[in-house]
Amino acid sequence: MKVDVGVLGPLGTYTHQAAHEYFQASAIYNERQTIAATLESLETLDYAVVPRENSIFGSVVETFDGLRVLKQGLIQGEVVLKIQHCLVVKKGAKISDIDCVISHEQALGQCRRFISEHLPSATTSKTTSTAAAAETVSKLQKLNVAAICSKICITMFEDLEILVDGIQDEDINYTRFFILGKDSEGRPPFKSLRPTHALIRVTPSKMCFDLAELLKIVDLSVKRIDRRPAPASDPFLDIYFLEVVSSPHNPSEWPEQVSHSILRIRNNGHFAESIGLW
Amino acid sequence: MKVDVGVLGPLGTYTHQAAHEYFQASAIYNERQTIAATLESLETLDYAVVPRENSIFGSVVETFDGLRVLKQGLIQGEVVLKIQHCLVVKKGAKISDIDCVISHEQALGQCRRFISEHLPSATTSKTTSTAAAAETVSKLQKLNVAAICSKICITMFEDLEILVDGIQDEDINYTRFFILGKDSEGRPPFKSLRPTHALIRVTPSKMCFDLAELLKIVDLSVKRIDRRPAPASDPFLDIYFLEVVSSPHNPSEWPEQVSHSILRIRNNGHFAESIGLW
Repeated sequence: MKVDVGVLGPLGTYTHQAAHEYFQASAIYNERQTIAATLESLETLDYAVVPRENSIFGSVVETFDGLRVLKQGLIQGEVVLKIQHCLVVKKGAKISDIDCVISHEQALGQCRRFISEHLPSATTSKTTSTAAAAETVSKLQKLNVAAICSKICITMFEDLEILVDGIQDEDINYTRFFILGKDSEGRPPFKSLRPTHALIRVTPSKMCFDLAELLKIVDLSVKRIDRRPAPASDPFLDIYFLEVVSSPHNPSEWPEQVSHSILRIRNNGHFAESIGLW
Repeated sequence: MKVDVGVLGPLGTYTHQAAHEYFQASAIYNERQTIAATLESLETLDYAVVPRENSIFGSVVETFDGLRVLKQGLIQGEVVLKIQHCLVVKKGAKISDIDCVISHEQALGQCRRFISEHLPSATTSKTTSTAAAAETVSKLQKLNVAAICSKICITMFEDLEILVDGIQDEDINYTRFFILGKDSEGRPPFKSLRPTHALIRVTPSKMCFDLAELLKIVDLSVKRIDRRPAPASDPFLDIYFLEVVSSPHNPSEWPEQVSHSILRIRNNGHFAESIGLW
């Protein structure tokens, strides 16, 4: 039986691609219009996939704003995706057939060098999304139009194939995604048997708060820290998200170590919860 | 002699207001179109003022992106401003004269409750900025139009006065601004004689980096941490900004404590600099 996964839409974009790398053909993918709606989809669906951070643009603020108030759902995994644009054509088309390239304007901009070197006389035309470009090419009866899109699009629309993979100008563009499950139980085969990461959400009890003291109390290796304003609180009171990682020495005791760390934070008067273990 | 201050424009907005609270009449204010251009204005001007974080929306990403590459300029101060909209009219106008309210659409939206309670039959009209609304009212020969804007606008345009101060629906909306100077010397009276805050910029030397270890090495109280992707580096390598604060016990030794902390970070193989002391 397939699981139901909510993804930031439209389908065919990189969040869909990331979800597909994780769940493959074992899931039905349900698009949502915003990150908040994708996180809320956990109320009715089994999983949700949202972008967490991009290697150039940094943390995704909307995702962390959603995680501030996350009740249902636990982060159960992570996928890192190389943002890789493909030149997608009707099956059988050769590069010499192409005289028009269509895509979202950002993708066109990110592949400017490829287009000028390999398709110097082609015209370019904007579409509302990269997936919309793929759909347009799929419906055409001619071979002269190519779409720039993610490779997942060739599984969504008929009669398409990838002519060239990885045509973006910048090669170091990665996005990291969170995979969230409805509850802490998870369902095989998606739950990690040996988790090595946890995300601890801490709301300090007061403004005059020392992060150095907090990390002493946490007493775990801390890989990343994000902060967002605490909602409906005093101004400039923050919620902190600590991504903690297990030491290589005692991986089997890791979930207990996280639980003990959270108890220590609470005993010092702060609010703390684990919102992910993967 | 007046100092030259670069502020995120247009003049009349809250960054201008914050700069004015700090420098008062001792400065000439020079508008810049972007945060990056405001930081770059330090090459020719004496000071620059940029927003650092808002109590609802969080850290200002463009400011921290600029601080990643800041060469000239040191943060020499901070101003916290309550975002407070005023109802501004032609001198002599009473609330019963007003049948039209003009402002930037965000400010109109943030004062919806005041308008519906106190000016229920007034029409509203959008302008490109809050300052543009004030300028329009200033030029009118009639008393029936009011602008919603920051109070600095009545010093910029003639024949205006504040009819009501603090008309925004939400009362807890603060923005914190950085005051940057051209060099570490500063100029009296703007330099703090007894600094209590510093901003340390740390670029870790490697990916497998432990923030808990870093804060042990720093060995100072840490009030806030921000992170942004390190430019032109491996993906997901971050630059960290640590706002450290002095302990109340030995305030006079504080600048030395910061210097020693930075040396310790460097001795552990990371890049570190103080980009602010205030």
